[in-house]
Amino acid sequence: MDLEKIFKPHAVVVVGVSHSNPFNPSNIIFKKFLYEYEVKTFAINPKGGFIEGCRVYRNFDELSGEIIDLAIIAVRATLVPSVLEACATFGIKGAIIISAGFGETESEEGQKLQDQIVVIAKKYDLAVIGPNCIGIYHPPFIDTFFLPSERISAPRPGTIAVISQSGAWLVDQIIEKFSINNIGISAAISIGNKAVTTELDLIEYFKNDPKTKAIFFYLEGFREFEGRNFVKKARECAKIKPVVVFKGGQSEAGRRATISHTSSLAGSQAVTSDIFKQFNIIEARTEKEMMAFAKAFSSLHFPIREGRVLILSVSGGHGVVTTDVCTRYGFQVPLLSEEHQEKVRELMTEEYRSLIALQNPIDLTASAQDKDFEKILDYVLDLQEFDSVILCLLPYTVGISFQIGARLAVTIKNHQKTVVAYFPRLERYEVIIRGFELNNIPVADSIEEAVQILYGIRLRTLFLD
Amino acid sequence: MDLEKIFKPHAVVVVGVSHSNPFNPSNIIFKKFLYEYEVKTFAINPKGGFIEGCRVYRNFDELSGEIIDLAIIAVRATLVPSVLEACATFGIKGAIIISAGFGETESEEGQKLQDQIVVIAKKYDLAVIGPNCIGIYHPPFIDTFFLPSERISAPRPGTIAVISQSGAWLVDQIIEKFSINNIGISAAISIGNKAVTTELDLIEYFKNDPKTKAIFFYLEGFREFEGRNFVKKARECAKIKPVVVFKGGQSEAGRRATISHTSSLAGSQAVTSDIFKQFNIIEARTEKEMMAFAKAFSSLHFPIREGRVLILSVSGGHGVVTTDVCTRYGFQVPLLSEEHQEKVRELMTEEYRSLIALQNPIDLTASAQDKDFEKILDYVLDLQEFDSVILCLLPYTVGISFQIGARLAVTIKNHQKTVVAYFPRLERYEVIIRGFELNNIPVADSIEEAVQILYGIRLRTLFLD
Repeated sequence: MDLEKIFKPHAVVVVGVSHSNPFNPSNIIFKKFLYEYEVKTFAINPKGGFIEGCRVYRNFDELSGEIIDLAIIAVRATLVPSVLEACATFGIKGAIIISAGFGETESEEGQKLQDQIVVIAKKYDLAVIGPNCIGIYHPPFIDTFFLPSERISAPRPGTIAVISQSGAWLVDQIIEKFSINNIGISAAISIGNKAVTTELDLIEYFKNDPKTKAIFFYLEGFREFEGRNFVKKARECAKIKPVVVFKGGQSEAGRRATISHTSSLAGSQAVTSDIFKQFNIIEARTEKEMMAFAKAFSSLHFPIREGRVLILSVSGGHGVVTTDVCTRYGFQVPLLSEEHQEKVRELMTEEYRSLIALQNPIDLTASAQDKDFEKILDYVLDLQEFDSVILCLLPYTVGISFQIGARLAVTIKNHQKTVVAYFPRLERYEVIIRGFELNNIPVADSIEEAVQILYGIRLRTLFLD
Repeated sequence: MDLEKIFKPHAVVVVGVSHSNPFNPSNIIFKKFLYEYEVKTFAINPKGGFIEGCRVYRNFDELSGEIIDLAIIAVRATLVPSVLEACATFGIKGAIIISAGFGETESEEGQKLQDQIVVIAKKYDLAVIGPNCIGIYHPPFIDTFFLPSERISAPRPGTIAVISQSGAWLVDQIIEKFSINNIGISAAISIGNKAVTTELDLIEYFKNDPKTKAIFFYLEGFREFEGRNFVKKARECAKIKPVVVFKGGQSEAGRRATISHTSSLAGSQAVTSDIFKQFNIIEARTEKEMMAFAKAFSSLHFPIREGRVLILSVSGGHGVVTTDVCTRYGFQVPLLSEEHQEKVRELMTEEYRSLIALQNPIDLTASAQDKDFEKILDYVLDLQEFDSVILCLLPYTVGISFQIGARLAVTIKNHQKTVVAYFPRLERYEVIIRGFELNNIPVADSIEEAVQILYGIRLRTLFLD
């Protein structure tokens, strides 16, 4: 199967546009291609006519002579097999089946329809995403997510590829939340019931995609043997780029729920956290960890072998809590030697030297100014005793200027050490956050997220060793 | 000691305003009182003169004849004892000492100065907050948080009182994050080194404060015997309103850090999670749990005894993950009986009945409309088999209107059962969130937070039983 046809189509046909409902998924997709993408776009409806001033073709015969790479199919489930066969005989090699009503219904009829799709795909060597999915978002080539533009904001183009068994999960937890957190994605794929094209094909594709620096999965379960093949492929891929899996259906009740959702046999005991670890797959245990790992692997980072963290804070309380959370995630927060403590003290503005705490966490107090942070960060980044730094940087006091993000980013980039900034994501401080993020320094919105970012990088380091 | 004098002062004096630095903490506090509070406000600086067009008094003698409730002291640490004594002899019964440089410095001199404060306070029966603190925010009476108004946004007045050993923690994690999450507070107090007035006095005060419905603490540690007295007082208080503690310094390294921060003997092994539980104190284990519990106790809620959750979702993936998280927090997600499943199916819009999943989680799919949610929620809220409901409600599809928040809130208020809505906190969907929150229905920004809200309520229910 040729996935290029579905990821980078030159011409698409949307089968099932509606004359009566402009919010029909296929109509939304048609309009997106028509107006937002440089892809030749056709529509099919047996009634013919016009939509958005474009001719609607009655059937494939009327399209004769056109070269089309991809069909997007959004018709009633019972019609899908015949439409897919028509696509194939027309010469189309890729299809995305939006329609639901297949294996996920747990009905005999649904499963039979899904089996027919598999047979046709095999017969014609088709790449087929779905059914029961929202398809692919792969800017600037393709977007089949049938959400009106006013309801959703797409994340910036970037380096994370995400493959999900749940379309809504992809939209809500990835597309929207990556946007808010300014994480860039290279592609997002909703695989639905994965009747034909599975995570196995996709991991292969994105392993070799030069834009993609890390691959994230939301998975609920595998069919027989699929799990074993997946972890093997993941291990191969992990030699080149991180593979992160968030697994739905980890609990007994959750596993029951996956069956109603994607008809996949969820989490046989064999596919556990231990297996993931053994195959160098990074497991995100919560939605927040997934976000943190995405920040980690799309930002500037360096190996974290020992996990010895230096905490540079503007607040004693934040220092204490950060230390607790570091410990919970298996990091050490070692004492700073007296020699280094004295050096750091000398770098602080003279009148506040007596107020600061230095053992690690270093608490520069609310009296700290940009230059204190800059000088002391520059100093501690050189210390061999630590392999990572967490900045707890609060903007509420007047000593911290709005330039501090960009200013500290310059300092950080002069060193080869992972630094994460905890900094509250408030609109009024956007300029500070931007200072960090434009320089590719990860910014965490909670203390726990700061530690989780380091944790993701550390897992990756240990897998590579 | 009379805490009313510091929580509801009629007249205050700010000692230590600066003629050279308008960003001096005392100047910021002075301006806040002057322009934002209806409190008679005086300033003292030995040089006299004028600030903001107001006379600056050289000393207390010049204030003779005035009746003042509260002094805010922000002078060099070495001067604090004499200033405090001057306040007391003038007749002021309350003081907030902003200045740092006392016990927290771990120096002999700092400890000596702090001891002097204690002696003076005892001698004159003063209520003294601090030193090394940012004081009190208690709208509409008092605000000594010395942050320029453009750097901070205060949360709305509400029902949660927060007492913190870290001022920066209070500002960042409570004042700012409660604002973002639309949680109202009744008061916020930074107790700093708590040399005189401690959490023991404050829990007593807020236990009897009719505005306050729950009391939250960020604590790092206790002095000798203080811990034991605290948990006893907390248990008394918990008979009337929830007491929630987030404990800094839980790890070995974190405990070391608390000593540099607030010179308090942190977390003797005696004060553990077990002790908290034994004394009916709800422990927030993470910053996110603290936020979730604040949402829980400031919203409409009913006892959750058994912890049997019904999940009503617009997405299969969210249903699966919510089930997993429920299980992790000790909740059950029991099967819906076939009889009830059939009833729910009949309530769904006919053309989508075959697509929905019903076992619990109930997945209404992206085809669901407002009326489907409304009818089905109304039905399941009557079921005795469940004592709480999580709504996984995504706004991305066109079937969900912007009225859904207010509309479902009406349904919820017709029943006596705790409902939490997971709903992404995006500006563009503010009107939906407002629909819930104006009706006092808690809205969670992550699936985990939704479950944590129920978890907090359940802990409270079990303590009351």
